[in-house]
This record gives sequence, C-alpha cells and structure tokens, in this order.
Amino acid sequence: MQIEVITIGSELLCGRVLDTNFVYLAKKFSEEGYEVFRHTSIGDDPVMMKQVFEEAFQRSDIILTTGGLGPTLDDKTKEVLAALFQRKLILCEEIKNDLIQRYGSKLLSLEHQATVPEDTEILKNKVGTAPGFLFKRGQKSFFVMPGVPTEMKTMFEEEVFSKIKTLLSKEETFFSRSIHLCHLPENSVDPCLRELEKLYPAVEKGIYPGYGILSVEFKLKAKSEALASNILEKCVKRITDNFGQYVFSTQDHNLSLAIQKKMIAHRKTLVLAESCTGGHIAAKLVNIPSASEYFLGGVVCYNNLLKKRWLGVKEETLSKYGAVSYETTFEMLQGALDLSGADYALAVTGVAGPSGGSQEKPVGTVWCGLGMKGEKPYIGKIAAKGRAKRELVIEYASNFVLGVLWRQIAYGINSLL
Amino acid sequence: MQIEVITIGSELLCGRVLDTNFVYLAKKFSEEGYEVFRHTSIGDDPVMMKQVFEEAFQRSDIILTTGGLGPTLDDKTKEVLAALFQRKLILCEEIKNDLIQRYGSKLLSLEHQATVPEDTEILKNKVGTAPGFLFKRGQKSFFVMPGVPTEMKTMFEEEVFSKIKTLLSKEETFFSRSIHLCHLPENSVDPCLRELEKLYPAVEKGIYPGYGILSVEFKLKAKSEALASNILEKCVKRITDNFGQYVFSTQDHNLSLAIQKKMIAHRKTLVLAESCTGGHIAAKLVNIPSASEYFLGGVVCYNNLLKKRWLGVKEETLSKYGAVSYETTFEMLQGALDLSGADYALAVTGVAGPSGGSQEKPVGTVWCGLGMKGEKPYIGKIAAKGRAKRELVIEYASNFVLGVLWRQIAYGINSLL
Repeated sequence: MQIEVITIGSELLCGRVLDTNFVYLAKKFSEEGYEVFRHTSIGDDPVMMKQVFEEAFQRSDIILTTGGLGPTLDDKTKEVLAALFQRKLILCEEIKNDLIQRYGSKLLSLEHQATVPEDTEILKNKVGTAPGFLFKRGQKSFFVMPGVPTEMKTMFEEEVFSKIKTLLSKEETFFSRSIHLCHLPENSVDPCLRELEKLYPAVEKGIYPGYGILSVEFKLKAKSEALASNILEKCVKRITDNFGQYVFSTQDHNLSLAIQKKMIAHRKTLVLAESCTGGHIAAKLVNIPSASEYFLGGVVCYNNLLKKRWLGVKEETLSKYGAVSYETTFEMLQGALDLSGADYALAVTGVAGPSGGSQEKPVGTVWCGLGMKGEKPYIGKIAAKGRAKRELVIEYASNFVLGVLWRQIAYGINSLL
Repeated sequence: MQIEVITIGSELLCGRVLDTNFVYLAKKFSEEGYEVFRHTSIGDDPVMMKQVFEEAFQRSDIILTTGGLGPTLDDKTKEVLAALFQRKLILCEEIKNDLIQRYGSKLLSLEHQATVPEDTEILKNKVGTAPGFLFKRGQKSFFVMPGVPTEMKTMFEEEVFSKIKTLLSKEETFFSRSIHLCHLPENSVDPCLRELEKLYPAVEKGIYPGYGILSVEFKLKAKSEALASNILEKCVKRITDNFGQYVFSTQDHNLSLAIQKKMIAHRKTLVLAESCTGGHIAAKLVNIPSASEYFLGGVVCYNNLLKKRWLGVKEETLSKYGAVSYETTFEMLQGALDLSGADYALAVTGVAGPSGGSQEKPVGTVWCGLGMKGEKPYIGKIAAKGRAKRELVIEYASNFVLGVLWRQIAYGINSLL
C-alpha cells in the first residue's frame, strides 16, 4: 500500500516556515517501518488542491493532508474535498456543542468549524477548533488533518495512526539499522556498500554525509523484525568490522550525545578553547540535556587579546607563529586545562573566511587539538580543500574536533597523527 | 510562468533531515517576488523520479531539482534525466581536469562525477564534485542541482538564479517590504495590520514571530517596483511610526548583523558571559563575516567553577543567591568587562531545563544583563511562561539579550527596566 502526504499552506511555499508537519509524519511512519513514498506541498489554491488530491487518489492507497481547515478566508481543504467526494456540507450539532463547551458560544468561527461533509468519518480535534475527516472509497483512505502542528500531532497520534496501522497490518514493513561514523569520507565506505549490494541485493543501502559525520543506513522489507534482523546485522557487522574505530553510534545521529554518555560514564570533564568556531562547539554540546554533568564550559577567544588574557597564550607565540598555528593551539590547550582543571580540552583556531586568508594560510586552514591532563596533546591541521565557505569551515571544524575527542575516549586513537 | 521544485533523497522521506534546500529556494524566489507553485519530495527511486520529472515537465515552465547527483550507488538523477531527454552520458575532460586540480587525481569518483549528459548546459559546482545541468526543451527549463546544501546554494546563486530571472523578466511579480522587530509580541502589531487591511486591501500582510523576534511583511503584485513602492512604503511607515524603537532592520532578518553594523560604525567592542545559552549567542554573532571587528569573544561559564575562576564571581554570591540571580549576573558582567576591556558585555544565566528547575526558579527562568564600561548595568529577569522546552529557552534568551544590546546602541533604551 502506498502512503502519500500532502501539506497545504502558502506559507510553506514562500520559505517562511519549515514544513515540520511533514517531517513529523515521515519520522512516525519510518519509526514503525512504513515508507512515505511521495510528499507534495501546495498553496491554499482550490484549483491546485483539487488537481493534487485527484492525482494522489489515483496513485496512492493512503493519503494524508495537513492544513487548510482553519476558519479564515484562505482555508479551503474541506470544501474542495467535499466536492471531490460529492458530499454535502452539513452542520454537526455534536461538534458544535463540543466547541461551545470548550471555547464558549461566542467563538467567531463556530458554525463554520462545526460544518462537516455528510457521511464522512470525523477525526476529533481535542486541542483546536477544526475537526479532521476520513474519506473512504473502496480500499483507499484519505485522512484530512489541520495544519497547526500541535493539533495535527494530537489527531495523528490519537485518531489516525492506529487506523492506518490496521490497514497496513498484513503488509510487509521496513526494518532498519543505522551506523554513524566520524572522520570518514563518503567514498571510503562506498566500496564496502557495493560488496554488500552484491551479497544482499534486497537490502536498501543509504549513505548520508554531513560535514565530518557520515551515516550509513540499511533497510529491509520483511514480515517481522526477526526475519530482517539476521541480514541487517550482517550488513552492520561488515561496516563495523571495516570501520569500527570511526563509529560513534548505532542509534542516535548525534556525536555530542555519544561524547556526553562516554564522558559521564568515565566521570571525565571537558573544557573548550574556541577561536574560529566561535561558540559553535559549545552550542552543540549544550543542546543535549545534562551536558552540565561533564561540560565545564569554554572560552570563545575570538580576539587575540582574550587568547592572551584568558588562556595565557604568549604575545611572542602569536607574533612569531600567528594565531593559526601549532604553537598557539598548544598554548590554548594548556591554558584551558590549567585554568579549568578539566580532564580534556579541545582547541580550535583557524581562518573561517571569507576574509583573513593568505597564501600560506588560506581560508579553511584550521589548527585543532586535544589536550589531556598530564599528557602530551594531540595537535593537527585540517585540510581545507574545497571547504572555503565560512559556515562550512565552522561546521566541519566543529564536528572534526569532536570526532578527535570521541576517537580518543572511545578507542584511544590519536586521529591527529 | 510556473516554477516547481523537486527535492530528491530517501533521507527526506523518512524524516531524517529537514528539507532545508527547498526552504532556501522558496525563500530566494519569494524575496525577489516570484512564487513557487508546487513542491514534491521523492526518494532515490529511478522509476518514481522518471514519473515525477515527466509530470513536472508537462505542467511547469521552470523546474528545479536538488539531490541524487553524488558519486554513490543511490544517486540516480543524472542517469534518469539523460534517458528522459535522450542524451548520452559522456566523459567531460574539462570537468575531470578541474576536479583533479581541486581534489587530486586519486578522487575515487573522479570519472563518474566528470561524466555528463551530451549537449547539455553544465552548471559549475565550485565547492563540491557533482556538476549540475540545465536541460532545455522549447520554452521549458529543467535545472538539476546537487543535494549537499552548500553546493546547491553556491550553484543556485552563481549559476542558476540569474538565468531564471532572465526567463521571468517580463512577468508581473511581487514586490515586498519587511520590517524586523525585537521584544514585541505578535498581538501588539495585529490591530495596526487590521487598519492597513482596510486602507490597502491589495497588499498581502504577513506577521511572523520567531522567539523574541517579529517580522512583518507586505507584498504587492505589480509590473514594476515603482508602481508598488508608494503603497508599500506607506505600510512600512505605519509600522515604524508605531513601533520605531523596536525595529532592528527593514532589510535583513538578522539581529546579529544589525548589531555588528552599529558596533563597527561606533567602534565599540563586545564580550559575552554565557551560562545557560552555552555558546549559542557567540555562535550567532560569529556566523556573520567580520564579526572579529567588534566581537572580542566570551566565556561559556557553564559550570560555576568557571564563573568563579574566569569571571571572578564570588563563591559567597553563588551560595547566597544561586547561579540564576541578579547578583550573579551583575558579577558576570563586571568580570567580563574587566577581563576583556570591552565596551559592552552581555551576560545570561538561567534554567534551560528539562531538569534543574525548582518552585522558586522553574525551567525557563533566565536572568540577563547588559554591562557598559564605566556605567551601571541593566539587569532583568525574562518571563518563562510557555517556554519550557530547552531549545526554546536557549533560543528565546539568546535573541532577547541581543535585543537588549540592540535597543541600547540604536535607541539608548534600557529594555530591562
């Protein structure tokens, strides 16, 4: 059975808002092993809606729409669908009474929101005013939900998903496994995937690079987890056998979370000395709740003055070698460790661009290091090739240096050798 | 002319990633007054791709695709389009040489990435390995771009958008004006917009709240800027007359940029002392090129140890009033100003959650302040109502405190009174 999602709203098509409704639905289906095979976004235009609804109804078995059910002028989904399915719109006393009970009889849009297509299953909206609908014809189901994210989510979870699961219960579903790796370029994993393609052609293989982080995903359609897991585990094993010391998770796609778990388990603490990444590494760590259990904090020593005053980097070092150098990185690490008493320190200093580059140190040149209490630090330069954009330099350097920390605490590896 | 966007990638349909490519393109078109009328997302499935491409080509004049141009197994866009437009795939020596120059001759996917459809216009990829393509037939144009966001953006800005503008040059387009404000709730602007609705019904009015930042937009369709600008300016004036001291820009939706311009013009410097925002404010500032001209850096004093050691917050203050208090904020500001010699300091300390809240200081309680060299600081507490989610607390507090700085340097206003 094919599942298709249509999100409606002009605000989606002008780039003003991210389509979080679709991402939510896609994730929900994916988590249970179902696939959404197509997603369409359109504005609040009745002609376009009619056309898109008809197309979807022809090709798909389960269609979900969000949006266009509100009380205002530009909300037309209900009217278009009632016409398409040839249902009259009638006032539903039960919904009207429910709305009065929740919002009072002065609700401006009361009659409009309580008007529903005849002979159509109503999907209750417990947190808003617009009810949803389930239109059925033959084996096909058309679920119509509001666009306000909290209303849509509540309706989906309480009214829609269980109905869809019943429809899909006898179907094969997808089971999947993911592996998340750091410090590995996309093309190094590709030959391994090609071998797996020959061995297990039924397994879908995906590879998703993200600036210093790489995710590999295997998916297999089966009637049960048990039937899929044997083959999927073999695929995962092939990757971990080949690239074990790059893996940071087989669950969450989040290097900061992997680091946090390991650091807390080992009762270690971390401090940062960020120059060109300017707080981006700290922000990544702090996004995870309970980061305070291992992350002490850091210095954003964007200006050389602060490298000197706050981290004790010597004037002589800065003038002789420059801020972007092995020597400055070394002193940043030392200063951060000394001042904080942390077990580990990460330091980054580089040319994020677009200006500030030179022949010797072009934009994208980044020195980074890992300091460890009482031990010799790891320090190295990241190759800048093809990464000349400011936000890219920052993102890549942030992920890279977190990867350096991860590979040390997880595998005892110096990835800056 | 109808513009349509197709984003390709199985990761989009399983909810793994937000479709930021589409949002970017939609925004770009919208900013220049053009409308995208339809957006479709599909997985890396050649059969589905062919079908969607054919449909789009029938109904639309300008089609843009992103994704599926990489070197790996699951990237099929090039092959599907070459077959659809009946073009042979051939090795392009020029692209090959360019790739060798940028990535070396050992690039694994070299030959594959340098293979392009015959008789097709090449769109250069300056920051990655996959070139884009422009297929033309009659009045219709099919732009094919890579899915890696920075590669797509660079290609769109440097190669694609100017070509599309030429195609659309004689059409009636939308002209728009935006006003961006800080510290203003959505409903305070609404009555003013309703008055404007009566005066200028042809103008589309939009209001977009974003965690401490509010954007108001006016759009009007016309044959030329001159025809639209008179009415649009009147709308803008109504807002600025009413809410002038909240406005930070009538151009970019970027408070950090507004602050940077003003700080550099006044030759002032800034330092940060971030606790609960954990580097997020620094990261926002550093995202703007040339931030180093006024932003000295900051301390992410996540742990109280660093509040004491690095900023000189007294143990007594922390134990008597707690880290989330007027007194700690005061000492954080003082310490940051003293240590850095900056003209301005911002400090934030709060309970981001989900844990760490108490009856007296629930999750969402944030103290923040603005320190000024030689002057009394502004310090205040942010109301936490309905902002109990960690990422929202952090985002709102970051924007709010930047708004405090902006309103001081732009209008001399203490917004923490």
